[in-house]
Amino acid sequence: MEKLIRKIIELQNPTVVGLDPTLDYIPAHIKEEAFAEHGKTLKGAAEAYLRYNMEIIDAICDVVPAVKPQCAFYELLGWRGVKCLAKTIKYAHKRGMYVITDGKRGDIGSTMQAYANAHLGEMAIGEESFIPFGADALTVNGYLGTDGIKPLLDVMQGNPDKGIFVLAKTSNPSSGELQDEKIGTDTVYDRMGDLCEKWGAENIGKYGYSQVGAVVGATYPEQLRELRARLSHTFFLVPGYGAQGGGGRDVAGAFDQNGLGGIVNSSRAVLTAWKKKGGDGRDFAKAAYEEAVRMRDDILSYIPQIKG
Amino acid sequence: MEKLIRKIIELQNPTVVGLDPTLDYIPAHIKEEAFAEHGKTLKGAAEAYLRYNMEIIDAICDVVPAVKPQCAFYELLGWRGVKCLAKTIKYAHKRGMYVITDGKRGDIGSTMQAYANAHLGEMAIGEESFIPFGADALTVNGYLGTDGIKPLLDVMQGNPDKGIFVLAKTSNPSSGELQDEKIGTDTVYDRMGDLCEKWGAENIGKYGYSQVGAVVGATYPEQLRELRARLSHTFFLVPGYGAQGGGGRDVAGAFDQNGLGGIVNSSRAVLTAWKKKGGDGRDFAKAAYEEAVRMRDDILSYIPQIKG
Repeated sequence: MEKLIRKIIELQNPTVVGLDPTLDYIPAHIKEEAFAEHGKTLKGAAEAYLRYNMEIIDAICDVVPAVKPQCAFYELLGWRGVKCLAKTIKYAHKRGMYVITDGKRGDIGSTMQAYANAHLGEMAIGEESFIPFGADALTVNGYLGTDGIKPLLDVMQGNPDKGIFVLAKTSNPSSGELQDEKIGTDTVYDRMGDLCEKWGAENIGKYGYSQVGAVVGATYPEQLRELRARLSHTFFLVPGYGAQGGGGRDVAGAFDQNGLGGIVNSSRAVLTAWKKKGGDGRDFAKAAYEEAVRMRDDILSYIPQIKG
Repeated sequence: MEKLIRKIIELQNPTVVGLDPTLDYIPAHIKEEAFAEHGKTLKGAAEAYLRYNMEIIDAICDVVPAVKPQCAFYELLGWRGVKCLAKTIKYAHKRGMYVITDGKRGDIGSTMQAYANAHLGEMAIGEESFIPFGADALTVNGYLGTDGIKPLLDVMQGNPDKGIFVLAKTSNPSSGELQDEKIGTDTVYDRMGDLCEKWGAENIGKYGYSQVGAVVGATYPEQLRELRARLSHTFFLVPGYGAQGGGGRDVAGAFDQNGLGGIVNSSRAVLTAWKKKGGDGRDFAKAAYEEAVRMRDDILSYIPQIKG
């Protein structure tokens, strides 16, 4: 988590761009080239995703601290898509970006250990170690309790730059069905938040935040503010800005008096910014850059100055 | 789900074998061959996993209705492992088995739609459609509410053989931290179970069960019995038998008066049965078969005769 916060301070930008490609988001010239070379197949689509991601990364890497590839969109292309995910992570690292893999993984024991090593750690074969995906952070689902989180803490041990974000209050309309239910005077998401504080308690970093963050949606500004007050050492990943309806004012509650404590994600609005320009999409990377800057400025106008 | 239940009746066996390979489970002769051909690398390991899985499938496919590959162990080998997962699913289908991909995926909207199509459906590129993974069923996490389940119901629509299993009461020691918390007089897992009933209500099949199943651990026999009574249309996937401590007596509560309503998983005990024999593991597939049969007989001795 430390590296993410350092980058946020350095770039004065508490946002992350979600790399959630679909064929519909990718301009025709990229798809045509990829399909011509690799066929109108899963392989061709994966190639188009990769070129698209690389150009987006090139365009935003000097102003945006992090990217968040969403596993689902890569898995939709089968193993070729997952190969594209691995290459995307590698390329983002090459351009200096922090990478949050959005997998919402959640399991127990040796299974969770496998996920932890797959996404944040290494796989040992004989004397050699290999890095399967090598992200900096992973989103996880804490429904299974401590058994599902402990293996992640073990893998992150001694590496303060790694982090996880546990789902607490998600941004979707039906998130309340379970998450808002009352346990005594608390809600389910309060309790999940409390677990995040507990899981992170032993590794609180220089900026006051632990390696265990929480996902709290921009679409529930009140709950965001309430959880910020309740969970003083938990860094928030805030989805739901832009296409899902949240704005700068809505996410302000995620931040502390130093302008830290949250990173706001936008995917669709950045990735499809070129479509609003009415052209053929050859300027998609520039359009993404402009939307990323607009989003940053919107959010900065509502929060205290960022200082470490 | 219908095909799974048909196969359980046909084979008179309500069990599933978890295909959760690790290098430690695989006998030396398979690893040596794979490493010699493909190097002591992620690729070599993935090749060893595949050969191992295929031999296990060959050994059990005439007596066991289903396999359950756990995504985490494949992701640990990067995209090459995920390619092995896809090949394993294909091979299990070739041998007539029902495949439950254990991914515990959970997300919302277009993201969950991508997971649903990735694991249970198709990906359209132009006029052609491709099958990314093609499992019959997927385990999912319902923490995000209906928004996370609706896309799965859409993909399963019109295909009664497909199914999902939503985490309700998991088998691990700390599952109670959130799942046992009280919402009024119910627990969180009760409420999750109720949601399963609701999600499945519109597609109840010939055997009285919907396409929306639940994961309920063998390690909590009382809760298993209680949920069986409460959730009359919800088929249970029951992990925790064998290595995690549950026995035939413990899982009996998952079944109805027709011996239906549940499928019990064992992974480690089957996969590592050869180690108890003290040999070099060349008989690993036969040992797996024997343990699968022992498990079947153990469970059958505690439940009503299976009839459709």
